[in-house]
Amino acid sequence: MTWRESFPILKAHPDLIYLDHAATAQKPQVVIDRMTAWYETENASPNRGAYGLSASATITYENAREAVLKFIDAGKDATAVFTKNATEALNLVAYAYPFKPGDEIVVAISAHHSVIVPLQIAAKRTGAVLKYLYVDGVHGDFSEQMLAVIGPKTRLVALPLIDNALGVLYDVETVVKKARQHGAAVLVDAAQAVGHRPVSMQKLDADFLVFSGHKMYGPQGIGVLAAKYEQLEQMTPFLAGGDMIAYVTEQSTTYAPIPKRFEAGTQNVGGAVGLDAAIQWIDAQGIERIAEHEAAMTRYALLRLSEHPAVTVLGPKLTMERGALVSFEVEGIHPHDMATLLDQNGIAIRAGHHCCQPYMHHLDKAGTCRASFSAFTEERDIDALIMGIDHARKVFGYDRS
Amino acid sequence: MTWRESFPILKAHPDLIYLDHAATAQKPQVVIDRMTAWYETENASPNRGAYGLSASATITYENAREAVLKFIDAGKDATAVFTKNATEALNLVAYAYPFKPGDEIVVAISAHHSVIVPLQIAAKRTGAVLKYLYVDGVHGDFSEQMLAVIGPKTRLVALPLIDNALGVLYDVETVVKKARQHGAAVLVDAAQAVGHRPVSMQKLDADFLVFSGHKMYGPQGIGVLAAKYEQLEQMTPFLAGGDMIAYVTEQSTTYAPIPKRFEAGTQNVGGAVGLDAAIQWIDAQGIERIAEHEAAMTRYALLRLSEHPAVTVLGPKLTMERGALVSFEVEGIHPHDMATLLDQNGIAIRAGHHCCQPYMHHLDKAGTCRASFSAFTEERDIDALIMGIDHARKVFGYDRS
Repeated sequence: MTWRESFPILKAHPDLIYLDHAATAQKPQVVIDRMTAWYETENASPNRGAYGLSASATITYENAREAVLKFIDAGKDATAVFTKNATEALNLVAYAYPFKPGDEIVVAISAHHSVIVPLQIAAKRTGAVLKYLYVDGVHGDFSEQMLAVIGPKTRLVALPLIDNALGVLYDVETVVKKARQHGAAVLVDAAQAVGHRPVSMQKLDADFLVFSGHKMYGPQGIGVLAAKYEQLEQMTPFLAGGDMIAYVTEQSTTYAPIPKRFEAGTQNVGGAVGLDAAIQWIDAQGIERIAEHEAAMTRYALLRLSEHPAVTVLGPKLTMERGALVSFEVEGIHPHDMATLLDQNGIAIRAGHHCCQPYMHHLDKAGTCRASFSAFTEERDIDALIMGIDHARKVFGYDRS
Repeated sequence: MTWRESFPILKAHPDLIYLDHAATAQKPQVVIDRMTAWYETENASPNRGAYGLSASATITYENAREAVLKFIDAGKDATAVFTKNATEALNLVAYAYPFKPGDEIVVAISAHHSVIVPLQIAAKRTGAVLKYLYVDGVHGDFSEQMLAVIGPKTRLVALPLIDNALGVLYDVETVVKKARQHGAAVLVDAAQAVGHRPVSMQKLDADFLVFSGHKMYGPQGIGVLAAKYEQLEQMTPFLAGGDMIAYVTEQSTTYAPIPKRFEAGTQNVGGAVGLDAAIQWIDAQGIERIAEHEAAMTRYALLRLSEHPAVTVLGPKLTMERGALVSFEVEGIHPHDMATLLDQNGIAIRAGHHCCQPYMHHLDKAGTCRASFSAFTEERDIDALIMGIDHARKVFGYDRS
């Protein structure tokens, strides 16, 4: 079975050119089938019941957690908390991390709003100070001068592994080393990396690693906060309710052990089994093979877009400095118009600020067009994008030359 | 098609006697099929893309919201926020409601931990005082003496419509009237009511109505906070991130309109369409018809359990004072042992404190056995339960006589 054949949405829409994988991935049939099987034959509330179906649900859910931990090479010092999406995982850290007045939180200017805004709110609530690690939008490495914002008052540094606006791959290891010198923790937003390339939480030496299921071929409604136990141990619970408590009296509560302490309410087991199935699908293809394929598609897109006289490609010139997405501008055409015109040819890209307004402001851009790739992307998709750009240029009265 | 035939899990487990609907409902085939269709043919990230699939996803998601609002008769003054479960909805209110030092929060002692614990935490954080509305475990009405805890300092009163420990149906309207006299808002936890009987948010005149999808034939991973606009307008955002913002600068953020303001990150559209399909399934059966059937099953269970010499039924004597669940104790057998022994005969009930430890303490109980019903419950399920109890009694060396 080819990669394209694994995805039923491509059968339902034979003319669809889906280049918005960075927003959400499409789902392999095996992932959908696994969720169907869960609801048809296994559904029960885990952790709560003394009966077989509930006990099996508990095992199924914990197996999904183990699969996640193995997939990101979390090591024995870390565990995973299931959340509804990456955003909830980031809010969990922002709400529950014990910031004190005067503490400094450093966040990369290229971080997603879901990283920046919860930390803004946390800073305001706790009296911490929010500072920015500025990046240049061209390379993902950091000079000592750039890293000077990390200092003795820094408690937490948050940055993407690959940003979703320009697709820059960042040198997280260097940031971690600098943060360690000052005893600061590091949170890595890996939403654009996990499922695209091998990601090792141990190798990165990250304290927190956040990603979402739906961007890595899994369903919506499930995300992950992977974290070192030592970090989770100093955090108060965030969402409170059933299954995360040990004992409740009228005025006080003691909490369940980590990671259950951070998972309140009925677990989304259907989501977790879908994510587990997505990991199994990726493992069956080989993450290295997927990474190589996406690098080839990214390289081809960079080539085709760069040689187009009306297109300006943003971000790194080299594929190896990038994730599987390319941001670009088309002379004379606003990104939103570009996306709308491409849609008329069945081509789905993303236009706008990509939930990175501070970064766009820093780069002095209103927005960009973004094409993003996955296992099922083929050269013909990128060829179609180029033709779509030419078509849009014609509609706007420009001719290619 | 009979109700039983609608549920594939009963085909997969022909001998299963599922009496734990109050923990989670099983899913009709049409609900599972709808989610499959979503992922196979429609999946996209809503609100974000200029392309057709994303625009359709936005409409699909908003249609689900409209279906929810109609189903609970929310009226034009209220809207619905999708959350991952009822617990997140309750935490949203607890975190975002503008409590001030000295404010009083009144919560029913029979409320679920997911109501009590977030409000405990909110009280500690804001300097508000958490007080209890004590109930008697037998009736759901309130005397003036009981309601005297609601006074001029009360800001919020939180109670279940039907509690999940004993199944008492509460006279919410009287509580709302009392709260209104003091300008307090009322939050109703309707997780054990929605999908079981007609629920009208307008008739209850509740400010907040909370429930989960998975307890009403929908999937896991989706819950609802229905709320009056006037309440949401005075609340700060809770989870922050993409899609709930209007504009982000380095140090400040303005937010999107209600209800988007409270829905951060990629929406669980798959969950929302599953919930929409569950509502359609319920509407096709008729909620009145389901309510009548469940009342008949509850009446039969009360009869059979009450006449058993070793069984003590807790809670109201009358079906009309109850939801579709019965809590009971069996002489000489601990609830957990009872549930384990019933499981050997394929009978799934719930044993323990039902996430209501303060209530259990108030009632001076360690825990109970709970059998809960849904559309597919039949008299033979309850007959099997009685036989299972007799079997357990024999195992423990007792004889029925």
